[in-house]
Amino acid sequence: MAETVIELIRQNKMAEAKKQLMDMNVVDIAQLLEDVDSEKMLITFRLLPKDMAADVFSYMSNDQQRYIIESITDKEIEIIINELFLDDTVDILEEMPANVVKKVLKNTDEKKRKLINHFLNYPDNSAGSIMTIEFVDLKKEMTIKDAMKYIRETGVDKETIDTCYVIDNNRKLEGILPIRKIILSDENVLIKDIMDTNFISVKTLHDQETVALIFRKYDLLSMPVVDNENRLVGIITIDDIVDIIDQENTEDFQKMAAMEPSEDEYLKTGVVTLAKNRIVWLLILMISATLTGGIIKKYEDVLQSVVLLTAYIPMLMDTGGNAGSQSSTLIIRGLALGEIKLNDFFKVLWKELRVSILVGVTLASVNFLRIIIFDKTSVYVALTVCISLFFTVILAKVVGGMLPIAAKKLKMDPAIMASPLITTIVDAFALFIYFTIAKILLGI
Amino acid sequence: MAETVIELIRQNKMAEAKKQLMDMNVVDIAQLLEDVDSEKMLITFRLLPKDMAADVFSYMSNDQQRYIIESITDKEIEIIINELFLDDTVDILEEMPANVVKKVLKNTDEKKRKLINHFLNYPDNSAGSIMTIEFVDLKKEMTIKDAMKYIRETGVDKETIDTCYVIDNNRKLEGILPIRKIILSDENVLIKDIMDTNFISVKTLHDQETVALIFRKYDLLSMPVVDNENRLVGIITIDDIVDIIDQENTEDFQKMAAMEPSEDEYLKTGVVTLAKNRIVWLLILMISATLTGGIIKKYEDVLQSVVLLTAYIPMLMDTGGNAGSQSSTLIIRGLALGEIKLNDFFKVLWKELRVSILVGVTLASVNFLRIIIFDKTSVYVALTVCISLFFTVILAKVVGGMLPIAAKKLKMDPAIMASPLITTIVDAFALFIYFTIAKILLGI
Repeated sequence: MAETVIELIRQNKMAEAKKQLMDMNVVDIAQLLEDVDSEKMLITFRLLPKDMAADVFSYMSNDQQRYIIESITDKEIEIIINELFLDDTVDILEEMPANVVKKVLKNTDEKKRKLINHFLNYPDNSAGSIMTIEFVDLKKEMTIKDAMKYIRETGVDKETIDTCYVIDNNRKLEGILPIRKIILSDENVLIKDIMDTNFISVKTLHDQETVALIFRKYDLLSMPVVDNENRLVGIITIDDIVDIIDQENTEDFQKMAAMEPSEDEYLKTGVVTLAKNRIVWLLILMISATLTGGIIKKYEDVLQSVVLLTAYIPMLMDTGGNAGSQSSTLIIRGLALGEIKLNDFFKVLWKELRVSILVGVTLASVNFLRIIIFDKTSVYVALTVCISLFFTVILAKVVGGMLPIAAKKLKMDPAIMASPLITTIVDAFALFIYFTIAKILLGI
Repeated sequence: MAETVIELIRQNKMAEAKKQLMDMNVVDIAQLLEDVDSEKMLITFRLLPKDMAADVFSYMSNDQQRYIIESITDKEIEIIINELFLDDTVDILEEMPANVVKKVLKNTDEKKRKLINHFLNYPDNSAGSIMTIEFVDLKKEMTIKDAMKYIRETGVDKETIDTCYVIDNNRKLEGILPIRKIILSDENVLIKDIMDTNFISVKTLHDQETVALIFRKYDLLSMPVVDNENRLVGIITIDDIVDIIDQENTEDFQKMAAMEPSEDEYLKTGVVTLAKNRIVWLLILMISATLTGGIIKKYEDVLQSVVLLTAYIPMLMDTGGNAGSQSSTLIIRGLALGEIKLNDFFKVLWKELRVSILVGVTLASVNFLRIIIFDKTSVYVALTVCISLFFTVILAKVVGGMLPIAAKKLKMDPAIMASPLITTIVDAFALFIYFTIAKILLGI
């Protein structure tokens, strides 16, 4: 279907294209407009009715949004901004250059402009920066009938009416009330008799990751945000939380693979930016690996007398790295989901110790047989390799389990204590163990 | 607060404990009951009013749920199952042993039993396995007034009334209607005139990961599930989607760290299970690393003449592994979020090639200076190391970028093409490049 519409637009059959677009989802329209040239995109965009145009606009890429704002008239900007929800407007403006923000704010009435500026000032990743103000507020003295009348009069412009918020004259939040309870109650019942006073709220400066954890724990669809005096200043809705969960996960994946986190899509990011995000950590880890090289140099005599030992270094290093990254991944993920707490440190230590002994014994035994049967080396060489392997696995798993919790304790992001860093640390220790045991067993 | 209640329960002050529990969130009650002994937990659980008891039950751990079902009377089971939503019942039963499932089904009326059995038969991870049947179904000939009356009569038992579903006499889905539109419309308006006929639905056998992507793309709160004749058989709600996103991410993290994926929380998983989930991949990777050892053995003569070369092996292997895992992580994540498609193969290849040249040149230059200045080796050794490093980075990034897409093409999970496997593959090639260049430059 999208292909047909794109074809129609390219052939300038705009009436036909418009007819088809009216039956399409706004998300799909935004996506297909990415595939026509800017001029035609703008013509098509202007054909859309204003409420649809604003919706489509909110799903476009930053580049498209910027091009549209720069191209349309002040009047048109005003119409779009009036149709957009405040949280979407703020999201969009955060990504725009100063001149575009200025053009938008110039065409917004004073009250809204103040609000937008206020919202733009909330720190990135705070509850304040993701909330919206389009909610339904009720008074506790209202009856269900009053409330329904009020909702009908004001509900059109609200982002959600699924939950209503009960506030007093000072805007203090007194209760919440799902729309289902309103619909299912008798019309003479008072709001205060059915509202839920035992609700969960967050403050504007709370971190969005914490907010997302609360949403998940209590299966919420929306949540009120209050200031320090407990006054209702906004609400957060689940659709933004889903975006945040994706974003926080992507960040963790990137940090765990030793990259600077970036919110931009891979295919839309330039080569230089991609390279920059990767080089810093690679340099740090490369220089750290020198330490491992230093250990080899120090034990050059050992290698010189039994060159065969070199052949087992990759296996030892890789297995240590893999064993450690298994542990650190599980702990980092557990911390992110709130399943593992800081005071679980010793529980984790004890668990990893037992797991690593089981894993270490298995790997060392299999490897011992393999070396004896296939490599046909002396028993002493096989023993050196396998005892080192055993201790390396234990060390890797204990270090991999501990470092993420330690990082969190030090208010650092546990995700940086992942595979690459663990591998570098474990490598050095693994080689040290290897050469020490070689010296003892092989009498070098 | 939870601590006070636990204290009260331990001191057998049940009346006071009950009073406090009535003001608490069901999720918190389920959590605090984990911390009292089984007998007291059961006594407390039985104090709760039946609707609250069912809610608390649905948030308990599998062990607690199982203990309760095994301990309570048939009548009590019947009450709980009647209060639970069908999707929660099915979720719980999926984790229970056969005797517990039997006890539950025995105490369920025939209609519900058939439904539960039907739902238990949907494949794991399919849309059918996560949907529920507690939705509001309207007819298109109804007026808003009829619809509101119908919702008031039947809405209490529905999981969500935020969206209503319009079906014909054969249960074919004809449209959807958000409750907000119903509330905001005039009472004489016909449903068919305001319902949305351009809705998005999925089939029962669709994969839950696909379903989650659709929810995110269109910012949905719920979605209808239809059979092959387009008959409405259930709906999926956003709270389950959030769980699935978490679960799929955890699985990806685990696979990417070379573990068998598991849905169980780390602290609640036994040592033997944890070890089992880790050993298989470690064994496979350990055996594969033998290949790398083989390459070293083959070039033993090179190492014997310049033992110093061994000292740079860890740096070369680690940097290759890290460079490759950066690329594979970005591509795996992009594929999971639907941002990268199979036919982007050559775009990714071209991008990674350019990024890797930038990264490779930078790393090789820094390393060259470091070796010359600090290690004071001959220029030829430094050149050998740095040219190898350059090619290793390129190879690692290209392989890391390609393998996840190739895996997806072969209907395998891209997540297994992550750091550990990439590292093992890149190691072997890196050493081969290293020794080849050494032979040429050092004339061995």
